[in-house]
Amino acid sequence: MPDFQAILAAIYAELESVVNRGKVATYIPELAKIDPQNFGIYVNRIDGPNCHIGHWNTPFSIQSISKVLTLSRAIGLVGDALWERMDVEPSGNPFNHLSLLELENGIPRNPLINAGAIVVADILVSELKNPKEDLLKYIRDLSNDQSIGFNEKVARSEKETGFRNYAAANLLKSFGNLKNDIDVVMDLYFHQCAIEMNCAQLSDAFYFLANRGKCKRGHSFLTESQIKRVNALMLSCGFYDEAGEFAFKVGLPGKSGVGGGIVALLPNNFVVTSWSPGLNEKGNSLLGMEFLERFTTQTKLSIF
Amino acid sequence: MPDFQAILAAIYAELESVVNRGKVATYIPELAKIDPQNFGIYVNRIDGPNCHIGHWNTPFSIQSISKVLTLSRAIGLVGDALWERMDVEPSGNPFNHLSLLELENGIPRNPLINAGAIVVADILVSELKNPKEDLLKYIRDLSNDQSIGFNEKVARSEKETGFRNYAAANLLKSFGNLKNDIDVVMDLYFHQCAIEMNCAQLSDAFYFLANRGKCKRGHSFLTESQIKRVNALMLSCGFYDEAGEFAFKVGLPGKSGVGGGIVALLPNNFVVTSWSPGLNEKGNSLLGMEFLERFTTQTKLSIF
Amino acid sequence: MPDFQAILAAIYAELESVVNRGKVATYIPELAKIDPQNFGIYVNRIDGPNCHIGHWNTPFSIQSISKVLTLSRAIGLVGDALWERMDVEPSGNPFNHLSLLELENGIPRNPLINAGAIVVADILVSELKNPKEDLLKYIRDLSNDQSIGFNEKVARSEKETGFRNYAAANLLKSFGNLKNDIDVVMDLYFHQCAIEMNCAQLSDAFYFLANRGKCKRGHSFLTESQIKRVNALMLSCGFYDEAGEFAFKVGLPGKSGVGGGIVALLPNNFVVTSWSPGLNEKGNSLLGMEFLERFTTQTKLSIF
Amino acid sequence: MPDFQAILAAIYAELESVVNRGKVATYIPELAKIDPQNFGIYVNRIDGPNCHIGHWNTPFSIQSISKVLTLSRAIGLVGDALWERMDVEPSGNPFNHLSLLELENGIPRNPLINAGAIVVADILVSELKNPKEDLLKYIRDLSNDQSIGFNEKVARSEKETGFRNYAAANLLKSFGNLKNDIDVVMDLYFHQCAIEMNCAQLSDAFYFLANRGKCKRGHSFLTESQIKRVNALMLSCGFYDEAGEFAFKVGLPGKSGVGGGIVALLPNNFVVTSWSPGLNEKGNSLLGMEFLERFTTQTKLSIF
Repeated sequence: MPDFQAILAAIYAELESVVNRGKVATYIPELAKIDPQNFGIYVNRIDGPNCHIGHWNTPFSIQSISKVLTLSRAIGLVGDALWERMDVEPSGNPFNHLSLLELENGIPRNPLINAGAIVVADILVSELKNPKEDLLKYIRDLSNDQSIGFNEKVARSEKETGFRNYAAANLLKSFGNLKNDIDVVMDLYFHQCAIEMNCAQLSDAFYFLANRGKCKRGHSFLTESQIKRVNALMLSCGFYDEAGEFAFKVGLPGKSGVGGGIVALLPNNFVVTSWSPGLNEKGNSLLGMEFLERFTTQTKLSIF
Repeated sequence: MPDFQAILAAIYAELESVVNRGKVATYIPELAKIDPQNFGIYVNRIDGPNCHIGHWNTPFSIQSISKVLTLSRAIGLVGDALWERMDVEPSGNPFNHLSLLELENGIPRNPLINAGAIVVADILVSELKNPKEDLLKYIRDLSNDQSIGFNEKVARSEKETGFRNYAAANLLKSFGNLKNDIDVVMDLYFHQCAIEMNCAQLSDAFYFLANRGKCKRGHSFLTESQIKRVNALMLSCGFYDEAGEFAFKVGLPGKSGVGGGIVALLPNNFVVTSWSPGLNEKGNSLLGMEFLERFTTQTKLSIF
Repeated sequence: MPDFQAILAAIYAELESVVNRGKVATYIPELAKIDPQNFGIYVNRIDGPNCHIGHWNTPFSIQSISKVLTLSRAIGLVGDALWERMDVEPSGNPFNHLSLLELENGIPRNPLINAGAIVVADILVSELKNPKEDLLKYIRDLSNDQSIGFNEKVARSEKETGFRNYAAANLLKSFGNLKNDIDVVMDLYFHQCAIEMNCAQLSDAFYFLANRGKCKRGHSFLTESQIKRVNALMLSCGFYDEAGEFAFKVGLPGKSGVGGGIVALLPNNFVVTSWSPGLNEKGNSLLGMEFLERFTTQTKLSIF
Repeated sequence: MPDFQAILAAIYAELESVVNRGKVATYIPELAKIDPQNFGIYVNRIDGPNCHIGHWNTPFSIQSISKVLTLSRAIGLVGDALWERMDVEPSGNPFNHLSLLELENGIPRNPLINAGAIVVADILVSELKNPKEDLLKYIRDLSNDQSIGFNEKVARSEKETGFRNYAAANLLKSFGNLKNDIDVVMDLYFHQCAIEMNCAQLSDAFYFLANRGKCKRGHSFLTESQIKRVNALMLSCGFYDEAGEFAFKVGLPGKSGVGGGIVALLPNNFVVTSWSPGLNEKGNSLLGMEFLERFTTQTKLSIF
């Protein structure tokens, strides 16, 4: 087994001196305030000691990483019925998300693009009495940490600037693929994006996806087949239009968020979470992508 | 000069026996209630007596025909500045209106598609203190008829089912091409669609477009160049994806609405309005299209 | 009646001093050699003396203007059967001609875009024994000038660089909308583009379209209804993605070519041909567009 | 370690009775003649005995599976320079391959779609003296079998019906992304599709991709990083618009061909090739997909 802590320390030391760390997301004013010098990593291993470095315990906005968790929650609730309302294929195009949705009659390409995640949120609204509270409880249980919560300022900020997401929601509604009131669904959607977690909490929350469905405390959340589905989706659709590049360079299923977080995992082996708020041109954490590439190269641990 | 009244009577007699009159628009519940047997025509001539037949004085929902009137109002207010926010080209595609808007960065193809008309409504909201009242006054003045009004039930019905329009408004907003609050703009937009007029009122309202900018009472509303612009737009963009077919078969600038109305005009000659609520597959009044084709063929009056 | 010759002379004098005359088309090497200082105009009137100015009798490559003439020939041969293989609507998009063709299963939007003109050429190949010779004879007869011919160098140059056109032809073939051998069809297509005519010959050739189907010598070529169809198509589809702009600024049916020629006409009134090889950003003759706008403004003769 | 031979036999027995085996590809007449009853499997293990069942030693047309082999050859020749001419992202859309290519200025989405494979063929034509002979030698060396060859009838058949591929080649050429004569490039492309191999030969040929770049005889063909790239591409782009479905159901990098073959592999573990000519709606072998899903489920060997 490679010495994870030593590798972590070495890569971290190399990357700390990187001056160009990309640009912090500015379209959500609250996110624009984050210090780009933040950089933290946490590795949660199935068989072996965890390790971490840097700002691993500073909470940040998980943003799109939440899509994997709401997807898991929805699969747990409705199972394969989910796939009647969306597809499982990569979306391909960054420049025309709404175009694809329109051409394909309101069926989102997959649950990890915004339109798909909005349909997932709609399902949670249909299935749960208190969707926001329930989602929070679900994530707290996965992470075994009751302190996790929403950042209401960020949620409000998302709502005030989320016209593209409202456009998607209205388009979905026009095709009959949104059952509940748009404002209720979007309230959940904006809140899920505004959940704050640190690297350790996120690694814990994703542990069950690397451990055949069992969370750290041994509770089963999804079947093995469902886990395989979620992991396959992360691999092919987790990084927007950089999915192919990530699959090659990192070689792990994973998901990024514009808050600068990335979670990636090797089934039966480990979950790794990195956080650095500066983004590359494709909207993924610049240092995070760099770190993960070096990490899987040096540990020689990837799925390919 | 052809004998308009005789031609009108002859065509009307032929068409009255047509059994398949298309389908009344059903996506707006209020419109679905209209009796498809309604069929009226009114011709307003520049030099010569007017003529009419059938249900020419029954008010109906003018729907998209209103886009020509709001466009005229906006041109009168801001002039060519309007064209910084939208183009003047045919949109081509019926199947992907939002796709085009997305690919073209929120610049609508022309002011007669929904996205363009929403930007026009936004301009009216910016420029006018009481946009709804002002628009109504404008149209009442053009028609010289103070009884014209909104059908509030229809306006509400539009609002409740107008998800595709809300999607367009949000997309426009995301590109910075909508300056005011979406709900305020859409309230005007849904109300303009819900204006009720009869064939005579509509012909009167469009009179200035056939008369080099002067309305029936001799007041000037637009310059000759602006009139040319509006007429050119009606010819190339007035009939959705049936614009080319209409240009050929009828050979007049015109505009249709899903309420079953069509207004068409020959510059310096006449304005003709027909109303029959049954629509063809492209969303244009079936009997209206048929009538206009026969009318221009028999009068030999068209622009080509 | 306005004094055409005086107006012509005045506008010509104004425009002669224009320094920025756009760029001569360079993608066909033979066209790149043309002197941008060329500028000629010819007006052919139905009732009144013709007039002309500048390089009106210098032959130039008619390029896409030929599409109107092959369309007329094909309509004369097969009538409305033509419309089973293409549509009559504006294409809208400049940036994705092949995309539209692919999405619409090989049915070109109209006969004046390249894909449509290739299908028209295919029809001529099917219907005629010697399509190239026959087409030349047709145009010579229309113009009453037996000296008109192909520029073989230009035809070869088109062929050697016409990959986008070959792509369209192959795509049409894959959808079954090209019946003959691709090379045979493209040979006709490249030759029709390489026909050389001067402004007077072109005005003569288009005379029948302004004269209800009768050419200068009184022979009938198309029915009145067919003429209306061709004119309507020129108005809505004759200027690529500048069709709406041309309809407004000039207000006449017309067709441009990348050789710098433009033909426009007012039914029952006149045909005007201008030639200036410098093109604007949309690929239409810069001086030609400017001339026509001023010409219809000053003569007050347009369809709107 | 699971008992591969027993699992193979069990699944084979189950699937042999399947009556609906999909439709044999008919667009290439030569392929339409293949007996749909053929069904063979071969598993090549890195550490362990190989196993096979059914028609594993009947040669079939490898079709698109060849794209992985030409890609490997090209990477070996030009390395990362390849990625200046194409991308590594999933293409997403089945219905508009040419549209995407047009919108993205002639840069194919990845080397496993037709447009990308044509650019790869262009590179081989540029780099190799005798591209067809060299490619054959490369594949024979990988498989250690000198009997592998082209089926000239199939190659001719592809050429005669390959209009969509010629359209792509011409579009690429128009964007300057095809350096050589189209006919020469397409001759190589149609021949690579027409290579005939049996399941054992194909498994042998792909062995190096599961064995960190070393073929069965121990020769190194690509670096570990290059292998990772090819495997990542197969996972995200190997199954047209069913890539996401395959990633989930099978969970292995792989590539299918319309000849009914599928190759899939688990790095450091095994290569499996199945052949059954009947295709599902997405163009992938129906029995092959079914077999692979059951195989990875029962062996519990997948990358997720």
